[in-house]
Amino acid sequence: MSLQSIKYSRGSLEILDQLLLPGQSKYLVVRGVEDGWKVINKMQVRGAPAIAIVGCLSLAVEINPEDFETKKSLRQEIEGKLNYLVSARPTAVNMKIAADELITLANDLYKDEAINVTEMKQRFLDATEAMLKKDIADNRAIGANGAKAILQRVAETGAAPAGSTGSVRVLTHCNTGSLATAGYGTALGVVRQLAELGKLEHVYCTETRPYNQGARLTAYELVHEKFPATLVLDSMVAALLRAKNVAAVVVGADRVASNGDTANKIGTYQIAVVAKHHDVPFYVAAPLTSIDLAIPGGDHIIIEERPDREMTHVGEHRIAAPGINCWNPAFDVTPASLITGIITERGVFKPAELKEAITKLLES
Amino acid sequence: MSLQSIKYSRGSLEILDQLLLPGQSKYLVVRGVEDGWKVINKMQVRGAPAIAIVGCLSLAVEINPEDFETKKSLRQEIEGKLNYLVSARPTAVNMKIAADELITLANDLYKDEAINVTEMKQRFLDATEAMLKKDIADNRAIGANGAKAILQRVAETGAAPAGSTGSVRVLTHCNTGSLATAGYGTALGVVRQLAELGKLEHVYCTETRPYNQGARLTAYELVHEKFPATLVLDSMVAALLRAKNVAAVVVGADRVASNGDTANKIGTYQIAVVAKHHDVPFYVAAPLTSIDLAIPGGDHIIIEERPDREMTHVGEHRIAAPGINCWNPAFDVTPASLITGIITERGVFKPAELKEAITKLLES
Repeated sequence: MSLQSIKYSRGSLEILDQLLLPGQSKYLVVRGVEDGWKVINKMQVRGAPAIAIVGCLSLAVEINPEDFETKKSLRQEIEGKLNYLVSARPTAVNMKIAADELITLANDLYKDEAINVTEMKQRFLDATEAMLKKDIADNRAIGANGAKAILQRVAETGAAPAGSTGSVRVLTHCNTGSLATAGYGTALGVVRQLAELGKLEHVYCTETRPYNQGARLTAYELVHEKFPATLVLDSMVAALLRAKNVAAVVVGADRVASNGDTANKIGTYQIAVVAKHHDVPFYVAAPLTSIDLAIPGGDHIIIEERPDREMTHVGEHRIAAPGINCWNPAFDVTPASLITGIITERGVFKPAELKEAITKLLES
Repeated sequence: MSLQSIKYSRGSLEILDQLLLPGQSKYLVVRGVEDGWKVINKMQVRGAPAIAIVGCLSLAVEINPEDFETKKSLRQEIEGKLNYLVSARPTAVNMKIAADELITLANDLYKDEAINVTEMKQRFLDATEAMLKKDIADNRAIGANGAKAILQRVAETGAAPAGSTGSVRVLTHCNTGSLATAGYGTALGVVRQLAELGKLEHVYCTETRPYNQGARLTAYELVHEKFPATLVLDSMVAALLRAKNVAAVVVGADRVASNGDTANKIGTYQIAVVAKHHDVPFYVAAPLTSIDLAIPGGDHIIIEERPDREMTHVGEHRIAAPGINCWNPAFDVTPASLITGIITERGVFKPAELKEAITKLLES
C-alpha cells in the first residue's frame, strides 16, 4: 500500500502533517471545516490537488451527522463553508474550482423537488468522495500508462542495464507523490507502477533546491515504500546519466501549454537538456486538468520569482554571503522539443500530437 | 585591490579565517610554524595552493629573527619544520611539493661554501616569498589571458548583450578566487580581469552544493569587490543561459588530463553540457601545474565519493529524509569535446592542442 497522506472514511479524516516531515510522521485528525481551514492555511497539507481534496473532505466529515432539517439550511451551510475554505489559501486554484463545482451541485439538488434533505446530503457526500477517488484513479492510470511507455521504449531500444530482466533505473525531480496529490502521485505514480510490476531496478531523486522537496518529501516516500532509491544533488544529473544507465527521466508539471511546452519546478529544463545530451527519454506526467489548451506555448507562461531568503537560508541558518543578490525563479519552461512524451490518465502523447488528441478526448 | 586572504610582509603573516566566513571576516595572526600548522589543520585556510603558501610563510616569519648561529642548525630547522607542516594535512600535495623544493634549496645552500649563514637565511626567505609572488603573478596572467580570449570571442561572434559596449556576462562555479589560491584566483581571476578592464557587465555564481562554496565563498568575494553579481542555484544554469545572454562560462580545474578532459567540482560537467546546448563557450582556467600530461584521459581519474552526511545535513540541521541513500561524488569529469579553451598563465589552448603546446613550453 502506497504512503497515505490523506486517510479518509465516511465521518473520519486524518492528514499527515507535512510541516513535521521528514523528521516526524504524525497524522492530524481533521474534525471539520475549522480544522480543514487551519491545516491548509498552516501548510500542514500542500500541493494543489491535495489542498482541494482535504478542504472538501473537511466539510464532508462535518456535515455527516444528521443535523440539517431543511434543504435550504444544508445548501447555505455548503456554500458558506466552501467559500470560507477557499480563503485559507486563495492562490490554490484547485480548491476554488472544487468549491464552485460542489456549490453548483448543492444548488441543483436544492432546486430538484424530487430529492429530500437526506438524499441531498447523501448525494453531496458521494460527490465529495468521488473527487478523492477520481484523483487517485487518475494518478493510477497515469502510473500505468507511464510505466508501459517506459518499458516499451526500453524493450525497443535495448536500453535496460546489462544482465537485468527488463528492470529499469529512473530519475525524478521535486515531489509529485502522495504528499502532493490525493494519493499515489503523478511522476511518482509512474515509479510506483514500475515497482508494482517488479520492474523498478532503482529510482534516483534530486534534492530540488531551494525547498528541497526531493530530499525531504520524495526521499521520505521512497524510504517509506522501501524502494531501491538514491538521492542526488541537482548538480549531479549529468554525471548520473553518464555513469548509471538511467532508462528514463519522469517529472511532473505545473502547467502544459497546447504545443507541449511544460512549466514545472525550477531545474526541470536543465534535466531535460542533460537527458537529451545523454539520449535518455524525458517524460512529463500530468493529469488532463494540467494541460491548458488556451496557452499556445511556454513563452506565454509567467514565471514567479520568489524571495532571496529561500536561497540564502535553511531555516534560521544563513548559508550564503550577506549582501549577495539572488535570482530565484520558482519554475522554468521545458520546450516541447526536449520532451519524449506527456503521460496522462488517458494515454501518452508526443508534444506535437497533444493538442489534437486532447481536443478529441474532451469532445468525446 | 582584490580580497586578500593572505596578508604577508617580511616578519608578519595574517590569514582570513575561512571557518568564520561568510558570517564574519576576521584575520588571524600567524606567528610561526605552530600557528601555521594549526590554521591548516583546522581548515581556517583551505585550497591546495593557499595551504602550501601559508605553510611556507609561517616558517618564513618564524626564522626571520637573527637566532641561528650556524648554517647546519638553520638547515635542520628548515627541514624539520617543513616536514612537520606537511603533517597538518597530509593529502594536500602542494604543501609536500613546496616543502621538498625548499628542503632541496636549503641542502644546496648548506653545501655551497661561498655562502654564509646570513646569506643563506636571506636566500631562503627570498625563495619562500617568490612562491607567493609567483602564484599571484600566474593567476594574474591566467586572468589576463582568459579575459582577452572571452572578449575576442564575443567581438568575433557579436554575442555581447544588446546596447552594451562589449561588456560581458559570465558564469562561474565553486570557488576559485583569493580564498582558494595565494590571491587573485584562477577562474575568478578571469572575472577580476574583466572587471579591471571595465568589461564585466555581470557575474553569476552557482551555489555549488553540497558545501556551498559558491554561495559562501565566491559570493563573499564578489560582494567584497562590489562586482555586479548574482547567486543562482545549481539547478538554474540552463534557465539562466536561456534568459540572460551569458557570454561565457569559466570554471577552475582540479586536474586536466593530457587530452584536455578536466576533473573539477561536481556539477562542472553538467554546466558544460548545458553551455554546449546554448552555444555558450566553456572555459577551464588552471595553472600549468594542474595539467598532468601523464594522464591520457579523464577515465583514468579516480573520483572520490564523499560521506552522505554532507548532503543530508547543513551543520547540525537535517535536510533530507532519514534512511535515504546518497550518491556523493566530489568531482566529475568534463570531456574535452565540451571545452572551448583551457586558460593557463602561458596562453589559452584548445584541448586538442594542449599536449603539444605544454610539452613545448616545458622544453623551452
